[in-house]
Amino acid sequence: MSDIEDLTSRMRHFTEARDWARFHDPKSLTLALVGEVGELAELLQWLPHEEQVDAVRSQPMHGRLAEELSDVLLYLLRLADVVGVDLAEAAASKLRANEERFPPDDHRSVAPTKT
Amino acid sequence: MSDIEDLTSRMRHFTEARDWARFHDPKSLTLALVGEVGELAELLQWLPHEEQVDAVRSQPMHGRLAEELSDVLLYLLRLADVVGVDLAEAAASKLRANEERFPPDDHRSVAPTKT
Amino acid sequence: MSDIEDLTSRMRHFTEARDWARFHDPKSLTLALVGEVGELAELLQWLPHEEQVDAVRSQPMHGRLAEELSDVLLYLLRLADVVGVDLAEAAASKLRANEERFPPDDHRSVAPTKT
Amino acid sequence: MSDIEDLTSRMRHFTEARDWARFHDPKSLTLALVGEVGELAELLQWLPHEEQVDAVRSQPMHGRLAEELSDVLLYLLRLADVVGVDLAEAAASKLRANEERFPPDDHRSVAPTKT
Repeated sequence: MSDIEDLTSRMRHFTEARDWARFHDPKSLTLALVGEVGELAELLQWLPHEEQVDAVRSQPMHGRLAEELSDVLLYLLRLADVVGVDLAEAAASKLRANEERFPPDDHRSVAPTKT
Repeated sequence: MSDIEDLTSRMRHFTEARDWARFHDPKSLTLALVGEVGELAELLQWLPHEEQVDAVRSQPMHGRLAEELSDVLLYLLRLADVVGVDLAEAAASKLRANEERFPPDDHRSVAPTKT
Repeated sequence: MSDIEDLTSRMRHFTEARDWARFHDPKSLTLALVGEVGELAELLQWLPHEEQVDAVRSQPMHGRLAEELSDVLLYLLRLADVVGVDLAEAAASKLRANEERFPPDDHRSVAPTKT
Repeated sequence: MSDIEDLTSRMRHFTEARDWARFHDPKSLTLALVGEVGELAELLQWLPHEEQVDAVRSQPMHGRLAEELSDVLLYLLRLADVVGVDLAEAAASKLRANEERFPPDDHRSVAPTKT
């Protein structure tokens, strides 16, 4: 089982074992996702630009980032599961589409455009 | 290779082939993640509560959700890669910690608390 | 002085008195805004849909909402100040434009479209 | 009438004239706010750090920022109205509290802490 499927399955089981599915409608889960992205933003917001690379690799920042990135992923997988999207497949498909829409030779070094 | 590792690797290659890594510092990537979460929120914001379940499974909504969820995942994986976090491992670890912190018997049916 | 101008001016003074302007570039301020919106989302995320109206008016929820809404406004005003936008004027102008683009007779009772 | 009260009143009237209040529960309005913050983030995300100050003052970026900052403010005022928070008063109160909690002499030049 792929890790996206495995984590999705474990999140579903975690939710059901606590009878929390009643709280997991798409809009509520999106708000939960926003809450976790907010925590991620709060970790980084005042890091001076040039210090970011070193700061994110030192502790305790690195461990906190791992936790918040994980929280975002777990809610994202839960939301995809609830809305019936196979996220591994959809993301691979979107990346392929981006690869074709933005040929390297035409886009090198210029700010990424909306994908 | 797991799908999280595979997608992470492809996103790294996609970025480098276009010389876009210069734009991918952690704070900028977090803003990009926020932009995609915003697009997800915009798809769902006016769905009447009781109509959500059916609405998210019909087209074109379902396809649009697949795209936006994918965009969020791709930037999340890119950000984890840039800050040096093994996201599959970190997420599995966080879920295990949540499973232990919130024993089902003590938390069943009451609103999920901050994990 | 209008209250938007007054709060903007006090936020500027608050920032300068602590020599924090160096941290207040537009991208960092936007991340700070995201952090506060995240806290707002976390307050609401698990409220059952039908219970929202009563829940938001009772304590301690009401007081917490007042704080988080305030935090969002203060960072929004700070960001507008830093990027040189007269927010009171711009918002009045945008609302006027929305009033003209969405004549009531053509839009009554159908889900709000993107303004 | 202060500008916050004026804009709040006009947003209420705008909503009622189109019979859109049915869509304006707190959770839905928060998602709408997130959508607009996302659009703001998308405008700034790839701006190189050192180029931000000039970039935000030139067109068309400046005009786009004015629009998105306005959209965020309008939904924030609408949300405050719906949850019954006097935002001008609450924000002034929060700022006073921050001024007392973070005496300038103790906090000068060090990264802003959570307010």
